[in-house]
Amino acid sequence: MRTPICDLFGIEYPILAFTPSQHVAAAVTRAGGLGVLGCVRFNDTDELDETLTWMDENTDGKPYGVDIVMPMKIPTEGTSVDLGALIPDDHKRFVDETLLKLGVPPLPEGEGREGVLGWLHSVARSHVDVALNHRPVFIANALGSPPVDVIEKCHEAGLKVGALAGAAKHAKSHVDNGVDIIIAQGYEAGGHTGEIASMVLVPEVVDAVGPDVPVLGAGGIGCGRQVAASLALGAQGVWTGSIWLGTEEYRNLAGNKGWETAFLRATSSDTVRTRIYTGKPARLLKTKWTEAWAEEGAPSPLPMPLQNLLVAEAHNRINASGDPDVISMPVGQIVGRMNEVRPVADVMADLVTEFGEAVAALNKING
Amino acid sequence: MRTPICDLFGIEYPILAFTPSQHVAAAVTRAGGLGVLGCVRFNDTDELDETLTWMDENTDGKPYGVDIVMPMKIPTEGTSVDLGALIPDDHKRFVDETLLKLGVPPLPEGEGREGVLGWLHSVARSHVDVALNHRPVFIANALGSPPVDVIEKCHEAGLKVGALAGAAKHAKSHVDNGVDIIIAQGYEAGGHTGEIASMVLVPEVVDAVGPDVPVLGAGGIGCGRQVAASLALGAQGVWTGSIWLGTEEYRNLAGNKGWETAFLRATSSDTVRTRIYTGKPARLLKTKWTEAWAEEGAPSPLPMPLQNLLVAEAHNRINASGDPDVISMPVGQIVGRMNEVRPVADVMADLVTEFGEAVAALNKING
Repeated sequence: MRTPICDLFGIEYPILAFTPSQHVAAAVTRAGGLGVLGCVRFNDTDELDETLTWMDENTDGKPYGVDIVMPMKIPTEGTSVDLGALIPDDHKRFVDETLLKLGVPPLPEGEGREGVLGWLHSVARSHVDVALNHRPVFIANALGSPPVDVIEKCHEAGLKVGALAGAAKHAKSHVDNGVDIIIAQGYEAGGHTGEIASMVLVPEVVDAVGPDVPVLGAGGIGCGRQVAASLALGAQGVWTGSIWLGTEEYRNLAGNKGWETAFLRATSSDTVRTRIYTGKPARLLKTKWTEAWAEEGAPSPLPMPLQNLLVAEAHNRINASGDPDVISMPVGQIVGRMNEVRPVADVMADLVTEFGEAVAALNKING
Repeated sequence: MRTPICDLFGIEYPILAFTPSQHVAAAVTRAGGLGVLGCVRFNDTDELDETLTWMDENTDGKPYGVDIVMPMKIPTEGTSVDLGALIPDDHKRFVDETLLKLGVPPLPEGEGREGVLGWLHSVARSHVDVALNHRPVFIANALGSPPVDVIEKCHEAGLKVGALAGAAKHAKSHVDNGVDIIIAQGYEAGGHTGEIASMVLVPEVVDAVGPDVPVLGAGGIGCGRQVAASLALGAQGVWTGSIWLGTEEYRNLAGNKGWETAFLRATSSDTVRTRIYTGKPARLLKTKWTEAWAEEGAPSPLPMPLQNLLVAEAHNRINASGDPDVISMPVGQIVGRMNEVRPVADVMADLVTEFGEAVAALNKING
């Protein structure tokens, strides 16, 4: 399985893996793909710096990438205290009452109150600066084109820049801004997603950006047949995410068994695309928490970055509680295929083997 | 391009085309696929009988199929007059006021008032009876398993029975009921659809029903790369629909240029999944009509079959007016790829050629 993406990055397989876990990212890289570490969870740049040092030391000299969350237009800035003042009391009350109703205990004193600041522009910029002191070969932005000066800075440092796109017109605009690689993320994907499904989106984006811009297919990729489908649609590689939540290496980050229970039992019908996580539409596991926000009388989610500040402590409490009925996590429709926890290397080997089988089956059909 | 579906039906390519137009259906069949005539628009069984006689005479002796709309559980029955009494006045007023606001003129006296009765169980049964007097090889049901006695009657007549499924558990239940072929219809499809996108749905359904039950991939198929992707996912053929609305043969049914204008300019972002067409979620072209129903204060759609009776005259008026800003038609996200009107045979030839190219590209990647 070899495309120009392999030569571009010096990797064996054109399989990129987005993950918040350095253990997963490093294992993907070691297995011949490109592990891409999600930086948004690092409020503390020193912690990111240490984590990337760990990545440098645990990837056998092979390449890896990082993922940031940086809107091109700068949204409301400020500390969590300043921004907190912009959150209506009714919203805070709804969150408190819902947590009470769902039986979610408070956090131990002093833990997890701050929320995720990686959504803030200034913090995302600091993530880029820290990353450039390490050896990532690729920087991807979950919210489209990063600002042009950030793209230029990365290019000067020899990195390729990728941007997620949920529509062909966004992909074209990213390319105009200097982005090198488009990640065409379909409706079925976990996290921030648009409404166009991969089957339609991928060839549209490929045709829109032309043959010189590599496109990665994202959304719904969890087995080798799906890798083959994405490459048949014209992608030069795949961008995976959800499936790595079901790996042994991810346990280092997950912290408790609740997440695994929730993922392993979920079907592809058990996700929902909603604005409650960050203020922008994102696909999450459907639980009592997402359902509470969909009930009549529930408040409308706030714009980014306020919504995440509103729910950050709630999410920390929910995830710490480990109740699989309530847990709140971005995940794609492929969660229906995550039915056992396996080592990253095994998942990777299966993707590659089944890709070959799918191509063989197509050849038989083609005669 | 040859799969067991080809031998099952005696067709050249495993490409099935659902269409309300006998001209399109016959042209697909003549071009080596399987044209499947949608019966729901025939309130008058004599008209269906004549149309199928025309199909018998215009398909060069090659096979074709029919499509019915029959819920397994019998919903509210009755004439349009009986059922009309169940429609709240507020709903009727909303429809009248919206049409006035959108500038949709009334129909000429005596035209199109009755609405589509094909959603009624009794009418769908009469469609089956009429079809069995002709020579279709396949009968597909848009709403899942038909009743078991209908399946048995079709089997006795030598027909294969197909059923649409939007989730693996529905597919399994269809097979238990005696259905022969599953049409795995993804979120991106036009008309009645579920929420799981094709990339995830197709392999899930294939794995759920096992190797002995052929699966057709439906939703998002408009070019040969998408055919290759669907077959890579494990489908034995594809079920197409929307793309045939952009053919010369379809002009016989469309009646005016408004539909073409609307389809040709639409992008893949210009559809919406809504209950306003029939009471069940179906994907339509996004226009001022669908937007009016999404506004605050608009009534909730009624259950099947009441919603279609409520809006039937409105849809006839809208479609007769030919205003592309208001037009109301089921269509999938693939509408973004419909950019010129072509003969059916050309569309078919391109699907086949591009399929071969996509397989060749995958072989190059596979080394």
